[in-house]
Amino acid sequence: MSKKVPYKIVLSEEDIPRAWYNVRADMKTDHRPILHPATLKPVTAEDLAPVFCDELVRQELNDTDRFIEIPDEVLSYYRMYRPSPLFRAYNLEKALGTPARIYYKYEGGNTSGSHKLNSALAQAYYAKKQGLKGVTTETGAGQWGTALSMACAYFGLECKVYMVKVSAQQKPYRKAVMETYGATIIPSPSDTTEVGRRMLAENPDSNGSLGTAISEAVEVAVTTDGYRYVLGSVLNQVLLHQSVIGLEAKAALEKIDEYPDIVIGCAGGGSNFGGIMSAFMADRLAGKTAPHFIAVEPASCPSMTRGKFAYDFCDTGKVTPLAKMYTLGSGFMPPANHAGGLRYHGMSPIISQLYHDGFIDEARAVEQTSVFEAATFFAKAEGILPAPESAHAIRVAIDEALRCREEGTAKTILFCLSGTGYFDMSAYASYLSGTMTDTIPTDEELERGFAGIPSLPGIQ
Amino acid sequence: MSKKVPYKIVLSEEDIPRAWYNVRADMKTDHRPILHPATLKPVTAEDLAPVFCDELVRQELNDTDRFIEIPDEVLSYYRMYRPSPLFRAYNLEKALGTPARIYYKYEGGNTSGSHKLNSALAQAYYAKKQGLKGVTTETGAGQWGTALSMACAYFGLECKVYMVKVSAQQKPYRKAVMETYGATIIPSPSDTTEVGRRMLAENPDSNGSLGTAISEAVEVAVTTDGYRYVLGSVLNQVLLHQSVIGLEAKAALEKIDEYPDIVIGCAGGGSNFGGIMSAFMADRLAGKTAPHFIAVEPASCPSMTRGKFAYDFCDTGKVTPLAKMYTLGSGFMPPANHAGGLRYHGMSPIISQLYHDGFIDEARAVEQTSVFEAATFFAKAEGILPAPESAHAIRVAIDEALRCREEGTAKTILFCLSGTGYFDMSAYASYLSGTMTDTIPTDEELERGFAGIPSLPGIQ
Repeated sequence: MSKKVPYKIVLSEEDIPRAWYNVRADMKTDHRPILHPATLKPVTAEDLAPVFCDELVRQELNDTDRFIEIPDEVLSYYRMYRPSPLFRAYNLEKALGTPARIYYKYEGGNTSGSHKLNSALAQAYYAKKQGLKGVTTETGAGQWGTALSMACAYFGLECKVYMVKVSAQQKPYRKAVMETYGATIIPSPSDTTEVGRRMLAENPDSNGSLGTAISEAVEVAVTTDGYRYVLGSVLNQVLLHQSVIGLEAKAALEKIDEYPDIVIGCAGGGSNFGGIMSAFMADRLAGKTAPHFIAVEPASCPSMTRGKFAYDFCDTGKVTPLAKMYTLGSGFMPPANHAGGLRYHGMSPIISQLYHDGFIDEARAVEQTSVFEAATFFAKAEGILPAPESAHAIRVAIDEALRCREEGTAKTILFCLSGTGYFDMSAYASYLSGTMTDTIPTDEELERGFAGIPSLPGIQ
Repeated sequence: MSKKVPYKIVLSEEDIPRAWYNVRADMKTDHRPILHPATLKPVTAEDLAPVFCDELVRQELNDTDRFIEIPDEVLSYYRMYRPSPLFRAYNLEKALGTPARIYYKYEGGNTSGSHKLNSALAQAYYAKKQGLKGVTTETGAGQWGTALSMACAYFGLECKVYMVKVSAQQKPYRKAVMETYGATIIPSPSDTTEVGRRMLAENPDSNGSLGTAISEAVEVAVTTDGYRYVLGSVLNQVLLHQSVIGLEAKAALEKIDEYPDIVIGCAGGGSNFGGIMSAFMADRLAGKTAPHFIAVEPASCPSMTRGKFAYDFCDTGKVTPLAKMYTLGSGFMPPANHAGGLRYHGMSPIISQLYHDGFIDEARAVEQTSVFEAATFFAKAEGILPAPESAHAIRVAIDEALRCREEGTAKTILFCLSGTGYFDMSAYASYLSGTMTDTIPTDEELERGFAGIPSLPGIQ
């Protein structure tokens, strides 16, 4: 490249993808079907209709169309914050003294503070188009709930968010952001649902979990007229919508004649890694030159690196369908001092299958103090304070760049900086004060989680 | 315009201004000189040398050079977040049903969350270039302190921030952000300075004020080896650095053949309004067609609309020089329930003079509940949660757009969206819960403030 690459490779509005990429259509082995929790038969569109709105059910089950058009109404909001910038991390490279070329796709520049808005807008739009009155969802750290609140405000939908109780208490301002956008926030477990009342009866002091909040949100959706449930990760439709991240990143890199040797994303439920990965995975699945893919997860919630590839429930209350995925058991909870997000017990079935089949090269578990060390180093060099989730990807990007320095190789590294850490400052404060510790579940703790994975004779 | 204007008018890195614009060089009447507090003579470079670093003193006193080159080292950080986007507010226009074309320059897309970074980088750079060890400053809401912490981390300088005590208590996460960037935060008033100890002796339960924090920061700067003081608003040098905002906005508008009929900015100390105004004020001062300029301030701290144009101290402790400016008296404090920032008792001498001479057409005071109403409306339509300070400008932009609807005129309105409200959610929560009230000082309260303005016989 003769011309110097700028700090920000910015595409124009005309470069926003007009269609999402459906990686399932290209997969050699599709993931195993999702099973109805009562019948254990593959779920049908009819089964899902009371839970999800119709168009999203079609997208969820679509394994044939490679591209699905983005509606104009969604594009008109995408244009307010997309294309998101792709940064060349010159200052990070300099601080590391690495010959590697590091790029990051920055998805935190919108008010929701993360990539979650890409799917929230699509889901809210289809709900509105169907004439629904509102949607329910759950949120943990609050990124998804914020994104959905914004999307619902824009399309004029009611929005009920079940927020993991400990998060609602620790993050009153995150709650206030969602309320500013008109959403109703209910700390979970709550007395507004059967599932919530059962959980509270078992443990009145429960801090809540994402799995329980999902159970509550689903229950309200299926029992309230004109309501459906929406989810910010794990589902096929979410990976579909998030494909804009990788499509844009690929187009921006093409503009400067670059192609990544390594693609890195953090992986909780999979929306983030799935988003940055898909456009490049298309090359791998087509047998072309493709990057080395690394999914990064917390050592305290190691679904890919230490979990089982099995059919499991998507929620703690066991009201949702079962998916074949890497899982720690739907009752698994990361240790209490885990501060870095990515606390879901399972993993997107698409990502699970791609990993199982070797198309995703590597899953790597990292410890949280090293994650916050990387986050702080990155913030000082690049001026963006990353979300703890995103900092998992930064940790591995830095490790790979340092390996390049040792080996004297100038690899091209791409990672997704999926969000900002403005609402995670208590975790940063804990790191800075030296009180943060690492939290790796013991084998015994994992076994207790695995014990909750249902035994399904005859089903693989 | 035949071609549809995009949502975001994005310039390339080559379009970042290479020089700041010094509006003083074009002013018909320069503002009155700043006076030494002991001698009441105009301050010299020698007087200022113990307080500010040398190059910044030169910039402070420079009333002849129209343009001052931006150093490469500062540009290399500007490239990480500039040019900032100029948005066409299509969704806001639609929500208001106005024929007006509304544009806003968005300066909140960097981690500091506001435009303050533009000047922080310049000031930190010159301090480093002079071989200094560190800088001191004050911060109220925390925007300036955060920006300076980031700049000091980048250039490798120590950074001591005196933070108004009530803010430090109410915003522990803002404190944590600054600490992440390596800064030391001292709640003010503190026992680390003479001024602070005096204030604490008078009132041990003092919540602190910006004026007191300035006094403390200046004292530490002049008594600590290798340290200087830096300030985020009011000063000529700050308006100089912030001129990049208006220069970029003007260039972006030219690209789409637009020129604003109205330019709106909020005005606390003046960094924000000065930044968006200057490039257009050049036209006014040259006798060309120019916009109608509106500076917006809170009704609870109305320095331009109800203050006096007089020589006054820049701080509460009366250790700084005196400036001829619109002031409420250096002891004035806005009522306790004022939540919207912009709480400085004075106003930039440049803006004060331009307003006094009629080049700034209008100052308008707005009440805080109407400001948060505008902020919430804007967030839902445009998807960006504004800082309360910036929402003052939004309030007036909306009012002007509604007037266009009534009159059937399609004016072009430009305002500066200087920052995001992520760290101001307690104020939003107060608005949402209906507990926020408006706080307009009585004439008697203002008179008490005016009584603190020094009487200087023979000095105008």
